[in-house]
Amino acid sequence: MRDLSKDRALLAINSATVKALTLPQLVESCVRRGIGGIAPWRDIVQAVGIEKAGKLIRDAGLTVSCYCRGGLFTAADEPGRRAAIDDSRRAVDEAATIGAKCLVVLGGGLPNGSKDLAGAHAQVRDGIAALLPHARAARMPLAIEPLHPMTAADRCCVNTLAHANDLCDVMGDGVGVALDVYHVWWDPDLPRQIERAGKRILTYHVCDWLMKTRDTVFDRGMPGDGVIDLRAIRAMVEATGYSGLIDVEIFSTENWWKRDPEEVLRICLERHQTVV
Amino acid sequence: MRDLSKDRALLAINSATVKALTLPQLVESCVRRGIGGIAPWRDIVQAVGIEKAGKLIRDAGLTVSCYCRGGLFTAADEPGRRAAIDDSRRAVDEAATIGAKCLVVLGGGLPNGSKDLAGAHAQVRDGIAALLPHARAARMPLAIEPLHPMTAADRCCVNTLAHANDLCDVMGDGVGVALDVYHVWWDPDLPRQIERAGKRILTYHVCDWLMKTRDTVFDRGMPGDGVIDLRAIRAMVEATGYSGLIDVEIFSTENWWKRDPEEVLRICLERHQTVV
Repeated sequence: MRDLSKDRALLAINSATVKALTLPQLVESCVRRGIGGIAPWRDIVQAVGIEKAGKLIRDAGLTVSCYCRGGLFTAADEPGRRAAIDDSRRAVDEAATIGAKCLVVLGGGLPNGSKDLAGAHAQVRDGIAALLPHARAARMPLAIEPLHPMTAADRCCVNTLAHANDLCDVMGDGVGVALDVYHVWWDPDLPRQIERAGKRILTYHVCDWLMKTRDTVFDRGMPGDGVIDLRAIRAMVEATGYSGLIDVEIFSTENWWKRDPEEVLRICLERHQTVV
Repeated sequence: MRDLSKDRALLAINSATVKALTLPQLVESCVRRGIGGIAPWRDIVQAVGIEKAGKLIRDAGLTVSCYCRGGLFTAADEPGRRAAIDDSRRAVDEAATIGAKCLVVLGGGLPNGSKDLAGAHAQVRDGIAALLPHARAARMPLAIEPLHPMTAADRCCVNTLAHANDLCDVMGDGVGVALDVYHVWWDPDLPRQIERAGKRILTYHVCDWLMKTRDTVFDRGMPGDGVIDLRAIRAMVEATGYSGLIDVEIFSTENWWKRDPEEVLRICLERHQTVV
């Protein structure tokens, strides 16, 4: 298991953790602190312009651990599903332009008015399959992210690493998984599925599950503030040979998003070295 | 699949759905409406006195589909774990006295200050094993209820029907499962695990998952108001030979708990006949 106690290079800051920062501000702050990477969402990249964002990141010497995000394939009608695939192709191109290691892909929830979970699963599978040739041509790996089951209806109906692994089995080359501890920590099948995922783990995300969680999306904790055994999960992930960066991704309307981003970055780095 | 369109006998009202009612009030309302059963929590039974509650229910001719609840076995120390087992033994006795079909058993969450999920799983297994001889002697089946993964930290670390089935495999006779659609609807493995559970399904609970869920515990929907394909799940459950009642259990601080219990009961019956 890698020793992070003095590490800065393996930390990546997900831009959603410090939403107030622009891409140039995020890049500057990370460089100043010796942080090795970033995981930008599309909004802050598009705000700068894709080519310019890529140059900015390359010139700074930062790794783009992943690009967030494509997918959300489920929709009530064919034009809706086609639009999601088209948009995901653009996300692939953006990811390639900025030199991201992978594009995070979310399944999508139940289409409006639908109760057909198996149908939604099929739409996700078909959406990834439709996106894959373009991603392969761009040499941009797709990282399927299982989201917590509490998001199955409104965000993502792929809710276990087992399901993401099953999708990888079907898809073959060019597809892997994005593993975020927040979504999978509760799963008794996690050790087996991490081992099964093996080299498919393309990006690894941390935050924490707060004992009293007040929102199904926007109440994540800073690593160390919750109940997830982060060391144990990282040990399993690194036992597969994972050698990539570790992204801190925290959605937190009532706490971390209210704080000074510089304070948040300082604490992210401290926790990276002490509890992750 | 059973036709519920004119049915009243297979409906059981969980007392948590109409929290404002005392046991005598709940019994009277159900009898007046021709509703076949109740699923009382311990508080309203204890308020009347166990023996008296049993006589009241028997005289009314109501079925007690399940008694809620025992378990919560996890604790930071041995006295805490022993207290949970002792309390669950009393719950077994109460369930037997009021003639319940089974006692619902929850695992419990992570002990205070603990991040040891596997340890919590072991405590649950050991707790059920310790309770089982008493339950068998009282001829009171224990219904292990998997709870939604979002409750893993603070309520129950048994979060899939697969895990509950695994526990049943270990425990043998006298143990089954309580299946609540709210907790398991998202699981792609659900069809297989329902088939695997088979005769072990001791009680079946319905409510609904609201697309926008505002609380991890207390924002359940009335059957028909959410996204769960209730008919499809009931078809799978009844295909195993399940012939018991169907409990409506709704925790809803901001909606149903604020309404007149008589209105809630009327709507429960209507939804039982039309969407469950």
